[in-house]
Amino acid sequence: MNRILVLGAGRSSSLLIDYLATWCAQTGRQLTVGDVSVMAAESRLNGRGTAVHFDIEQPAEPLVANADIIVSLVPAHFHPRVARLCLKFGKHLITASYVSDEMQTLHEEAKQRGLLFLNECGLDPGIDHMSAMEVMDRVRQRGGRLTSFESYTGGLIAPDTDPENPWRYKFTWNPRNVVMAGQSVAKYLEGGINKFIPYQQLFSRVTPIEVPGHGRFEGYANRDSLKYQSTYGLQFVDTMIRGTLRFEGFCSAWNVLVQLGCCDDTYTLKELSEKTHRDFVDSFLPSGTASTPDRLARQLKLDPRGPELKRLAWSGFFAEEKIGMQEGTPAQVVERVLNKKWKLAEHDRDMIVMWHRFRYQFENQKREIQSSLVVVGDDADRTAMAKTVGWPLAIATKLLAEGTMGVRGVVIPTQAEVYLPILHELKKLGVVFDEREN
Amino acid sequence: MNRILVLGAGRSSSLLIDYLATWCAQTGRQLTVGDVSVMAAESRLNGRGTAVHFDIEQPAEPLVANADIIVSLVPAHFHPRVARLCLKFGKHLITASYVSDEMQTLHEEAKQRGLLFLNECGLDPGIDHMSAMEVMDRVRQRGGRLTSFESYTGGLIAPDTDPENPWRYKFTWNPRNVVMAGQSVAKYLEGGINKFIPYQQLFSRVTPIEVPGHGRFEGYANRDSLKYQSTYGLQFVDTMIRGTLRFEGFCSAWNVLVQLGCCDDTYTLKELSEKTHRDFVDSFLPSGTASTPDRLARQLKLDPRGPELKRLAWSGFFAEEKIGMQEGTPAQVVERVLNKKWKLAEHDRDMIVMWHRFRYQFENQKREIQSSLVVVGDDADRTAMAKTVGWPLAIATKLLAEGTMGVRGVVIPTQAEVYLPILHELKKLGVVFDEREN
Repeated sequence: MNRILVLGAGRSSSLLIDYLATWCAQTGRQLTVGDVSVMAAESRLNGRGTAVHFDIEQPAEPLVANADIIVSLVPAHFHPRVARLCLKFGKHLITASYVSDEMQTLHEEAKQRGLLFLNECGLDPGIDHMSAMEVMDRVRQRGGRLTSFESYTGGLIAPDTDPENPWRYKFTWNPRNVVMAGQSVAKYLEGGINKFIPYQQLFSRVTPIEVPGHGRFEGYANRDSLKYQSTYGLQFVDTMIRGTLRFEGFCSAWNVLVQLGCCDDTYTLKELSEKTHRDFVDSFLPSGTASTPDRLARQLKLDPRGPELKRLAWSGFFAEEKIGMQEGTPAQVVERVLNKKWKLAEHDRDMIVMWHRFRYQFENQKREIQSSLVVVGDDADRTAMAKTVGWPLAIATKLLAEGTMGVRGVVIPTQAEVYLPILHELKKLGVVFDEREN
Repeated sequence: MNRILVLGAGRSSSLLIDYLATWCAQTGRQLTVGDVSVMAAESRLNGRGTAVHFDIEQPAEPLVANADIIVSLVPAHFHPRVARLCLKFGKHLITASYVSDEMQTLHEEAKQRGLLFLNECGLDPGIDHMSAMEVMDRVRQRGGRLTSFESYTGGLIAPDTDPENPWRYKFTWNPRNVVMAGQSVAKYLEGGINKFIPYQQLFSRVTPIEVPGHGRFEGYANRDSLKYQSTYGLQFVDTMIRGTLRFEGFCSAWNVLVQLGCCDDTYTLKELSEKTHRDFVDSFLPSGTASTPDRLARQLKLDPRGPELKRLAWSGFFAEEKIGMQEGTPAQVVERVLNKKWKLAEHDRDMIVMWHRFRYQFENQKREIQSSLVVVGDDADRTAMAKTVGWPLAIATKLLAEGTMGVRGVVIPTQAEVYLPILHELKKLGVVFDEREN
């Protein structure tokens, strides 16, 4: 397996391609990168492989036919299409995307044909699965009985980036998804009871999290925390929650936008061309003679000089500055306003934080392990996000090509055979968990 | 036009059929009532007309063919189907339902064929249109310029009904619609600015309303307050809001269910057979050692002995009583729990309250008119709802049959020719507005 094809040269591909290029050069393998922009692919490769045009709307079959392993970074909903091409030509596939129902249906056929379709092998999903399974398998092997699993991951900014930014946050992935976050009910398990948190409560029901050496964070629950309950072997725990991690104070400020209805994507505001940020906020408040921030504070029972309003003011929500759109949904306006301050600048460094807490019974004792990971980016191109998404994909590719990964079919990296060597290699790259037991 | 056909003998038909039966008997006309249950139709008619089987799924064409005017109480989404039958056989149609886009497309054809398809001729929509237009046309005729229109209607219970009920509310129409109320964003106009209220704010942004002689109420905004802006000739007002009216205190208590996410209809709770009302509420709260109401109060920053928790407790939400369902959406559970205390008993009397406030400029003066209507039911059958929905339909039928209503096409009762005689007749039946000018 000497021919590696990467599909997509976008935001998260820099470290993936660097790793693969170095390894391919060392081992005499061929690396091809396809993208709608050949220039983008060329720029990533910088002479270390072949850049080709690739458009998922018209997938070029020869590209797949002439590769041995396809690493796909195309948008998740295109993956079944890529997977069917891989089946047609008998190729392996590695992605960082969630396994869709459609992808899952290909399991038996891929397995029978001796193909690996490895998915969810990036950061979240990816490193979260691997690092959690490694701890849990270890606990179970020594006779512990897991009772609780909590896991939160967030893409944030490093302490030296934008030190005035009170949110400690910038857009390091799809801004739209950040604005729309949490709009479905969150389901989790707590004390043996199925719990439900609606959007209107999500950002006021946060879990405080302290990461040793990195300060105080908070987590809010993801849509479906129970998705991996059986995959993880946690059918008998009484608590299971997976969520998103932010710096302390983020959620109560974000909750202001949620409560006002500013993140709604179901209707369009017209005639915005003369409207300012402040006008936008005003359209969600009762009229009155008091200023917009004062009416906002009164409506939501907040301190007008408190941290929530301070964050919104920093983001320019009360500015008499034109939005700069003709029309758009409230969510689109929020994205545009935030992007003015939250776009990653060239030398900004992002930061990935992951935190797990495992509780278990061992010889009639209650025990707890906390495990955390902090990865900092180098700049706006070599981001922590690109490292933690790209490296697991690249390592998996190497292991597969070198013949040391024997599992086949539609798989996620929850088996020791897959996660142990990947975590081992990640550690060498500086992706190291801090584990503490009480 | 001597043959009147009523389709539907359900909840709101009692007073409609009584009125039509008396008038038909006096004037030698024929009254036919069709329902899926012939017994229901017979029971309503009590010998004063012909009861027939009618199923909207298989509409019997001869029924329509043999009538002159069809009064339809079938569910709103079936009305275009009834209307097309009316077109086919050249019959008039009268309904209390909103004009759908599909119904609107029939306007020209109905008009050309000399047919009246009168819709929105019940209470809300219906009496609200008529009573508001009557005041506004009068203001405009004497040279006033309207600047603001606010209008709220609610179906409540009379003071002598269920005096211990702190909500002052029972189900007098479709309980499901009550539970699901407000789940789309509310849009209105205030001070010349388009305003938006999301579900999570709707029940905490209420307008206090005092109805002379009847006490204090509160109103929350409907989904689209601007729907009738041009129909009412209010393109140049700076404030327009239409909403739902409740007794004071209802909204802040209902808001607890909203904030917890209890009225969600998008997912199903399984294995409910052993669950109690309290378990249900608990599934929306963080776990803890404190009691369910105490945790609820803490989570939503409410007084544990305050009026919100008092109302929820009265409704049994904290009771260790089985829900009595195998599974259901949260909204279905709420409906079931509420129905245990909110079902109208035989001798309960409901109460309709409508309130309008008009502000206008007259000779450089700011003036205000408040107009209100209170109608009380006789019992759980002859409800205020049945009076105020049924009588306008019945009166319109009479006026049409007697040849004094000349308008044709798809129409709502906003023209003086239609609303004046109906309001005049309603007054004789005791449906009288109290109007006060400042």
